[in-house]
Amino acid sequence: MKNKVCKLFGIQFPIVQGGMVWVSGAKLAAAVSNAGGLGLIGAGSMKPELLRQHIRKARALTTRPFGVNIPIFSKYAGEQVNLAVEEGISIFFMSAGSPKRFTPILKEAGCTVVHVASSPTLARKCQDAGVDGVVVEGFEAGGHNGREELTTFVLVPQARDSVDIPLIAAGGIADGRGIAAAFALGAEGVQIGTRFAATVESSASDAYKKLLVSSGDSATRLMLKSLIPVRLVQNSLTEKLQELEARCATAAELEAELGAGAARRAIFDGEVDAGEVEAGEIAGMIHDIPTTAELMKRLVSEASQILSGVALQGTFKNENGFS
Amino acid sequence: MKNKVCKLFGIQFPIVQGGMVWVSGAKLAAAVSNAGGLGLIGAGSMKPELLRQHIRKARALTTRPFGVNIPIFSKYAGEQVNLAVEEGISIFFMSAGSPKRFTPILKEAGCTVVHVASSPTLARKCQDAGVDGVVVEGFEAGGHNGREELTTFVLVPQARDSVDIPLIAAGGIADGRGIAAAFALGAEGVQIGTRFAATVESSASDAYKKLLVSSGDSATRLMLKSLIPVRLVQNSLTEKLQELEARCATAAELEAELGAGAARRAIFDGEVDAGEVEAGEIAGMIHDIPTTAELMKRLVSEASQILSGVALQGTFKNENGFS
Repeated sequence: MKNKVCKLFGIQFPIVQGGMVWVSGAKLAAAVSNAGGLGLIGAGSMKPELLRQHIRKARALTTRPFGVNIPIFSKYAGEQVNLAVEEGISIFFMSAGSPKRFTPILKEAGCTVVHVASSPTLARKCQDAGVDGVVVEGFEAGGHNGREELTTFVLVPQARDSVDIPLIAAGGIADGRGIAAAFALGAEGVQIGTRFAATVESSASDAYKKLLVSSGDSATRLMLKSLIPVRLVQNSLTEKLQELEARCATAAELEAELGAGAARRAIFDGEVDAGEVEAGEIAGMIHDIPTTAELMKRLVSEASQILSGVALQGTFKNENGFS
Repeated sequence: MKNKVCKLFGIQFPIVQGGMVWVSGAKLAAAVSNAGGLGLIGAGSMKPELLRQHIRKARALTTRPFGVNIPIFSKYAGEQVNLAVEEGISIFFMSAGSPKRFTPILKEAGCTVVHVASSPTLARKCQDAGVDGVVVEGFEAGGHNGREELTTFVLVPQARDSVDIPLIAAGGIADGRGIAAAFALGAEGVQIGTRFAATVESSASDAYKKLLVSSGDSATRLMLKSLIPVRLVQNSLTEKLQELEARCATAAELEAELGAGAARRAIFDGEVDAGEVEAGEIAGMIHDIPTTAELMKRLVSEASQILSGVALQGTFKNENGFS
């Protein structure tokens, strides 16, 4: 018997690496796929031609399945979809937009389409639009985030009760405990972002990776709700943004403070105090920068121990008070 | 081998009913304890003499252990602690304040003290202050809420790595899937609020209970962050408060809009459109108003199926892709 998410993508373990701006290029995506998960090239920070280069590079680095994540609100989304199909990509993770927009085109082209949803209601709409699977992403996730502010804990079981298609949990997962918990809630796979950002193969700057390692348990906040909500590590920029928000600054004032390329500056260029440091709440649980292969091994081993009953035989099973 | 939370309180199942204003009086607390969990009388909405009456009433309704939940910020907190000790209460769940304030007095009096924490750092401070157990409560929880905005999913494993004392997960739990997930994340017990508010024995008005049943998956929002953050079901009051917040109204303006007794009006008197309807994000998963005994039976049976491996033998174990 095979896991539905593994079957959907033809992969060994139901672990998807989330698309992350300035982090998940060909190198990370290929490393995750080579380790038995599903790597995604994050198109959000790429102009169309750069996406093409990353797709070709990833193909040179792995013979296993990988996909692309395309944010629908991007002005390049249509162009990126077309060129990815041209380049033979068959797995699309679409986010931040309506599932009606690209699902018909992608299904027509024979692709596997997964949508990211921030509520059970939207998960159901994704299923109705004909997608093959759905990621439900909680409030604790890094980067852009839904307005409903539903957490992974309440999102997964309610989405499970709302859809029949393969369900992938995202937001707040960085170890095997999180994977096992997501399965207990009803998911059949997980999407992991921030934990993969702090790996050797991540394209992020060393300064960004080190910041994740040194972040405490309450480092991030969901910011800029009057623009598009985004979860950021608090720094001198977020302090200024908070001051502006506290006095009800306009969107234009917030955008001016942010400046152009704030995410690139922080994540890729390493100006972690001045830029937009996107990261999930789980950053506080990241203590090292392993290779992707080492991280995948650790995730699979921890999840497997809990899920197969090894950990259950110990504290989990006999001391749980229920059995 | 016995579960640590069960041992700590002398109860059968590691399920604690959260203290809730205008909801958890003697009737609900005794019903939860009679069903094998730990009932808590919520002192937050009670003047000291009323708390004394509820303690005596609960003692008449059950011979099993029950406790009280006292919010430390209340002006009655000191008086409530003293009278509860006088009345022979030996289990205290203290919330919304420093663990240093009452822990020494309560330990001196031979009581079991549990503190509610909203971050792993605070959980550690609670342990250092000498408490016997800690509840970590996530952003998704109803009613008053921490400023860190950490969700149950990221809070539990990081708290588990920070403390050795019994760990109870709260926020977003309303069925056996949530219980099993909390255990997978490292908790040894759960505290459940909103799900118990929609039971026959809850003191809440019928209108409030029916509102929970009819709530959709995105009904609540964390509001009033400039006062004390509180999670409320959205209604005409929250709409007005949101308008005020959007134009940076002062604390005094927000308090004036709220009016006196806004939580009582909504929860106890049933004016669910005009009052402060405290509830957790998991309200969307509540579809009925069972007796407490029936609900406890359901929670235990669902959790037990997953945790004992019955559900694991099926989809959870063999189709998880890890084993």
